[in-house]
Amino acid sequence: MTGASALDARYAGRRVLITGGIGFIGSNLAIRLVQLGAKVLLVDSMLPAYGADLANIEPVRDKVRVNYSDIRDAHSLAYLVQQEDVIFSLAGQVSHQESMQDPMTDLEINCAAQLSLLECCRQHNPAARIVFASTRQIYGRPKTLPVAEDHPLEPVDVNGINNLAAEMYYTLYHQVHGIPTVSLRLTNTYGPRMDLRSPAKGFAGVFIRQALAGETIRVFGDGDQRRDFNHVEDVVDALLRAGQQDDLVGRVYNLGHPEPRSLNEFVACLSALTGCRHEFVPFPPDAKRIDIGDYYGDFSRFAKATGWSPAMDLETGLADTVEWFRNRDR
Amino acid sequence: MTGASALDARYAGRRVLITGGIGFIGSNLAIRLVQLGAKVLLVDSMLPAYGADLANIEPVRDKVRVNYSDIRDAHSLAYLVQQEDVIFSLAGQVSHQESMQDPMTDLEINCAAQLSLLECCRQHNPAARIVFASTRQIYGRPKTLPVAEDHPLEPVDVNGINNLAAEMYYTLYHQVHGIPTVSLRLTNTYGPRMDLRSPAKGFAGVFIRQALAGETIRVFGDGDQRRDFNHVEDVVDALLRAGQQDDLVGRVYNLGHPEPRSLNEFVACLSALTGCRHEFVPFPPDAKRIDIGDYYGDFSRFAKATGWSPAMDLETGLADTVEWFRNRDR
Repeated sequence: MTGASALDARYAGRRVLITGGIGFIGSNLAIRLVQLGAKVLLVDSMLPAYGADLANIEPVRDKVRVNYSDIRDAHSLAYLVQQEDVIFSLAGQVSHQESMQDPMTDLEINCAAQLSLLECCRQHNPAARIVFASTRQIYGRPKTLPVAEDHPLEPVDVNGINNLAAEMYYTLYHQVHGIPTVSLRLTNTYGPRMDLRSPAKGFAGVFIRQALAGETIRVFGDGDQRRDFNHVEDVVDALLRAGQQDDLVGRVYNLGHPEPRSLNEFVACLSALTGCRHEFVPFPPDAKRIDIGDYYGDFSRFAKATGWSPAMDLETGLADTVEWFRNRDR
Repeated sequence: MTGASALDARYAGRRVLITGGIGFIGSNLAIRLVQLGAKVLLVDSMLPAYGADLANIEPVRDKVRVNYSDIRDAHSLAYLVQQEDVIFSLAGQVSHQESMQDPMTDLEINCAAQLSLLECCRQHNPAARIVFASTRQIYGRPKTLPVAEDHPLEPVDVNGINNLAAEMYYTLYHQVHGIPTVSLRLTNTYGPRMDLRSPAKGFAGVFIRQALAGETIRVFGDGDQRRDFNHVEDVVDALLRAGQQDDLVGRVYNLGHPEPRSLNEFVACLSALTGCRHEFVPFPPDAKRIDIGDYYGDFSRFAKATGWSPAMDLETGLADTVEWFRNRDR
C-alpha cells in the first residue's frame, strides 16, 4: 500500500458513494475505503458486459450498502447522492470499439449520465466532493510524449469524445457552480478484479486471460507500442487523494507510470509468470482505425500536488495480479 | 449576393435537407436554395423559443416541403435523411444561459441528436454531404486574437461543451466512416428573420428589437467588447460553399469578419439608423460568469479554401436588417 496514510484518516466515518462500485476499479476502491472506516454506498446497474461482478466485493459484502440502479436513471440518482460526502464517478462504458458500434449507448452513460449526476449534486448536494475517472483516450494520438494535461484533445473514437465532454462538465460545474470536482485521466489500469472476459475492454485483460488459460497470446501489430501501466492499487491510492485534498478541486490530472513499457514487455512479464506463448497478428481494421500508437502520460502535476507516484512496477504488479486470479480460481 | 455563382449551379435539382429549416439561418438558406433550383426539405420541431416562425419561409412556402419533427426523434430522422444529397444541420438550442439552467435539454438537442443524425446517415445514406453549424463558443475565452481553428477548445458553458462534442462526432464520422462532413464555426450572425423575441439569444437580437421599438438599449459592461458580426447572407453563402466543395470534407472552419466591431459601434450603427438611445448597466451575474470578452476569428483557412469573405460590413448589414424588419411590420 502506498503512503496516503496521513490523509487517509479523513475517510473514517465519511459517507462515500461509488458509481460502478461493483466493477473493477470501484470494487478495489470500496474494499480500501471500508478498511479506512468509510461508510460506503455502491451504485451499480450490474450490466455484465461492463465488469460488474458481486464476487468482486465478497471481502466487504456485509460492510457496504449496495444499491442496484443505472446512472442513466436520474430520479434514483438524485435521491442517492443526498447525504454523501464524497462521490467517485467510476461507472462507464469503457470499450472504445463498442462506442463505435453503439455510440448512443456510450453517449447516454459516459456523457448524459455524467451531466445528470452533476445536476443531481447541484440541486441536492452541492458540497459533495466528486472525483471523476476520466481517461487518456481524450488525447487521441499523442503528438508529443510524455503527454501532459495541456496536450491537444483530439479523441479518435466516440468513447473519447463523450469522456471529454463529461470531463468538461465536471470542470465547468466547479467554475460556475462551485461544486468541488476533480478529474483524473486514467491510463491502462490492471490488477485484481479486472474484467478478463470482455475482449472489448482492451488488450491487458485479454492477454492476462490468455496467459492464465494457457492460450497463445495474440499481439496486434509488432508489439512495440508503449503504454504506462498502472496497478489498480496505485489508481485507488490516487483516487483517494483526489477525494480528500482541497487544493485539487476544479482541475484535471494525468495518472501515469515513470517506466512506460511495450506490449512485448508486458507479454514477456506474463510469460515469465505463466510460461505462456505469443504470436504476432495483423491489426483487425476496426481496431487499427482507432488505435493511438505509443502513449504515456506526464503525471508530474498530480505528483507535485499530492506526492503520489506509482508504487508498483509492471513485474511486481503482474505477479500480484496473476497470483490473485490463480487463488480465486483454485 | 456574394460570388459563389459558379459553384451554385451544383445545387440545381439536388435534394437538400435543412434541420432547423424554419429558424433564422435555416429559412434564409432555404430561400436561397429554392432560387438555385434545389429540392428543399425543411425539418423543424417549431419550438417557438428556438426561433421557428412560419412567416420566415413565406416567400417559398409552396416551393419547399416541410416536415414537422424533432431531431431528437431518431426514427423519423432515419427516414427523412434517406435520398438527400446535402444535409445542413442547423437545428439547435443556441442560448448559452438556457444551457446552464436546463443542461439536459441542451445535451439532447446539441449533442445526442447530432450523433443520432450521423448514425442515421451512416446506416441509411452514408454518401450525403453534411454541413454542421458549429459555433465559436467552443473556444471559450480567447487566449489570442484573432482566434484560429487551432486555438485551445475550452468552452465556458454547457452549450459550448455540447457543440464541441457534436463537432467532434462530425469530424470523427468522416475519419472513421468516410461520411463527407464539414463543420463551420459560426460567430455572431444577424440579419433578416433573426429571432428578436428571445433575450436568451444574445445581445444582437435584443439590441435590434430595442432599437426598432424605440426603447433605450441596455449595454452590459462598458460596451468595449469586440465581435466579428456576420450578416446572414454571408453565412448562407459560406454554408452553400461548405455543402458543395469536395476538398473541405472532414475539416472545421471559422467564419468571421475582417473588421471586428465593438458593442458600442454596433449600437452607434443602430442609433444612426433608428435614433435609438442607450445606457450602460452592470453585467448580471449569470451573464458575467459565461461572458467571453473580446472575440474575433481568423477565417483565412476558409477564405483560402473557398474564396469566401463577408460581402457586407456592419453599416450595410444593419441597414438591410432594420429595413427588412420595418417592411415586415408595416
